[in-house]
Amino acid sequence: MNILILNCRGFSIHFQLFDWSRRTVLARGDVDRIELGDSSILMEVPGREPYGLDSDCPDFRSAVALILRTLTHPLEGPLERVEQIAAVGHRVVHGGERFTCSVPVDEAVIEAVRGFEDLAPLHIPPNLAGLEGALAHLPAIPHVAVFDTAFHQTMPPHAYLYPLPYEWYETYGVRRYGFHGASHCYAAWRGAALLGRDPDGCNLVTVHIGNGTSLCAVKEGRSIDTSMGLTPLEGTMMGTRCGSIDPGIPPFIMQEENLSPRDLDRILNQRSGVVGITGVRRERPAYLARAAEGDERSLLALEMEAFRLRKHIGGYAVAVGRLDAVVFGSGSGEGEWLVREKSLAGMEQFGIRLDRERNRAACSRDREERISAADSPVAVFVIPTEEEMVYAEEVAALLNGGAPKA
Amino acid sequence: MNILILNCRGFSIHFQLFDWSRRTVLARGDVDRIELGDSSILMEVPGREPYGLDSDCPDFRSAVALILRTLTHPLEGPLERVEQIAAVGHRVVHGGERFTCSVPVDEAVIEAVRGFEDLAPLHIPPNLAGLEGALAHLPAIPHVAVFDTAFHQTMPPHAYLYPLPYEWYETYGVRRYGFHGASHCYAAWRGAALLGRDPDGCNLVTVHIGNGTSLCAVKEGRSIDTSMGLTPLEGTMMGTRCGSIDPGIPPFIMQEENLSPRDLDRILNQRSGVVGITGVRRERPAYLARAAEGDERSLLALEMEAFRLRKHIGGYAVAVGRLDAVVFGSGSGEGEWLVREKSLAGMEQFGIRLDRERNRAACSRDREERISAADSPVAVFVIPTEEEMVYAEEVAALLNGGAPKA
Repeated sequence: MNILILNCRGFSIHFQLFDWSRRTVLARGDVDRIELGDSSILMEVPGREPYGLDSDCPDFRSAVALILRTLTHPLEGPLERVEQIAAVGHRVVHGGERFTCSVPVDEAVIEAVRGFEDLAPLHIPPNLAGLEGALAHLPAIPHVAVFDTAFHQTMPPHAYLYPLPYEWYETYGVRRYGFHGASHCYAAWRGAALLGRDPDGCNLVTVHIGNGTSLCAVKEGRSIDTSMGLTPLEGTMMGTRCGSIDPGIPPFIMQEENLSPRDLDRILNQRSGVVGITGVRRERPAYLARAAEGDERSLLALEMEAFRLRKHIGGYAVAVGRLDAVVFGSGSGEGEWLVREKSLAGMEQFGIRLDRERNRAACSRDREERISAADSPVAVFVIPTEEEMVYAEEVAALLNGGAPKA
Repeated sequence: MNILILNCRGFSIHFQLFDWSRRTVLARGDVDRIELGDSSILMEVPGREPYGLDSDCPDFRSAVALILRTLTHPLEGPLERVEQIAAVGHRVVHGGERFTCSVPVDEAVIEAVRGFEDLAPLHIPPNLAGLEGALAHLPAIPHVAVFDTAFHQTMPPHAYLYPLPYEWYETYGVRRYGFHGASHCYAAWRGAALLGRDPDGCNLVTVHIGNGTSLCAVKEGRSIDTSMGLTPLEGTMMGTRCGSIDPGIPPFIMQEENLSPRDLDRILNQRSGVVGITGVRRERPAYLARAAEGDERSLLALEMEAFRLRKHIGGYAVAVGRLDAVVFGSGSGEGEWLVREKSLAGMEQFGIRLDRERNRAACSRDREERISAADSPVAVFVIPTEEEMVYAEEVAALLNGGAPKA
């Protein structure tokens, strides 16, 4: 069964095609500069040279057509016919309070998603444009919407409400939604499996490290709190996003620098975090390597990042009450051992003891590892998570009649 | 030795006069509506009826004069002559990065404090006006400035810097300063004493609950992190202040509601927190009583408040590495047992076990109590803290040639 995953963002689509019966990736790639002119596609089929083509995509519908043409390219494509695609999974960034799990797409779903545009104005329009484009080209097969927010809909009101005027919640939906839901769900599910337990019997803190980083407090298999909020800006320090700061800073700095709300939002999202401290935009492995070499600002950024992660882990450990494991559900890449070592330092009293060597060795994108010491009451796992894999898992579960996990 | 404490705020002064050799309060009171017309003073001398007088105070200097006249009132005043005042302690809300402890006031100190006006525009002008007024009337005795921020100047850069453009720190001093320093210092000092240890050997989380609430991570006697930041708006949920929220909310709501930075700041400071959730402005004991009776919104606010406290305590517990005690350094009032019970629930794995009955019984403003179970590895104390008492302690320490604590 071949499952196509589409992750439609502003002006681009990331796609992956899985042969799900064998859990293998048949192709992955990106279409860039959609709607902007000079669009192009780049596709990688494992074991072959990357294949690229310039081809104008004035809209997402034509970009989806380009993906399908490329997947069935006589020489380069992994498929012979588009009919070999059994289902499409669509990443939808926001499901509001309505969607608590992945759902088959129909008109009602599309209309409901359109209603969340105010909450994610940069993400929902491309999500919908890609969804409608794919439905037009592949009308005969199931399409599944996988929501970033769905897994977190189990949060209780004391976790999802902000201490703000209550009418902002009623009128504008200002509350914590959380993101990376499918990734946290996957981490919680695999974490439980590695503990040899049922997910419902496990209390975990799951950590998703990437361009955006978020943590989730998972109690008895369910999200009871997560660090991202109304937007993906809240929580711990990220590559270019500030995470949580004093809410007195926005009004202060807007007045000092004469910034509009939009200016401020852009700076907090794009010029803060690690980039704000180091002043340099680097890929994450390069930044971590600089920190390991002792570059002053990179090391400062790393200490800040680890300190914030540590406090979040401590906070969520007491939020779930009895902690079974900390799961680094992504961020297994090069240099990440240093972040894990620093963020879990000094937690012995709380039952978390790292195996230094195992942690340092854990940098495979393919292997799940236990990096806690043998006598650590709380287990620590590194579980490489490819988000697209999680989306495909959701689609397969739904098609097979099982309950989706996220 | 009589010590006068002045806490000068916008349009008002709170004052307390101590007989420090006997650690007793000789008088306390407030001058209200300074600069606004219709000003008045209200003074309480323990054991007597409160004494009030309407008297116009066009500025802080005349308000200080009114306080001195009232303290030496032939019938109502506790003093015969102003010369019986040995020293004055002034609360100064912001000491920037310069003041790491309390200092005797001279011209250079006044000039330095004036430089922090941008950081605390509502507080520094009245602080300075009161200070200069008192110096004019009492030029012959020592005046001591006690800073809210001083105790926290031991925070390391990874705790005090925000993941924001670094130049905001360099240009505007945007960093975490923290507040309630004297109160956290006092709690840390008494907490160590109750543990029978030297403060330098104790790791504590101190909790200051009041109109403003903040927490402090105290490692080996020093503040290494605190929940308030550049302003007293950050951190946990408060009476009317939101505490930490998604920094994506300010730009979002400003656009939806067409708010100016100043409007936003006012709402986050004055219409959020408990008031935002309940919609009703109540004194804290009344709100806690409503929550205990099961009023839905009050209970929700209490759950939110306790959940945020709990996460902060957990975060700071791992930040200090090995926790000796949690000290509720204020907030011993009626109904506060419920906040403590909820915020410390489910922390057994982390060594915190409350004695339910002792906690419920602890509501004295005069007595220090241990409320943890006898077998709890981490002690929990309730230490009633009167801020003015802490300021007087600072003044006395400085006059006696000892090092001030905060």
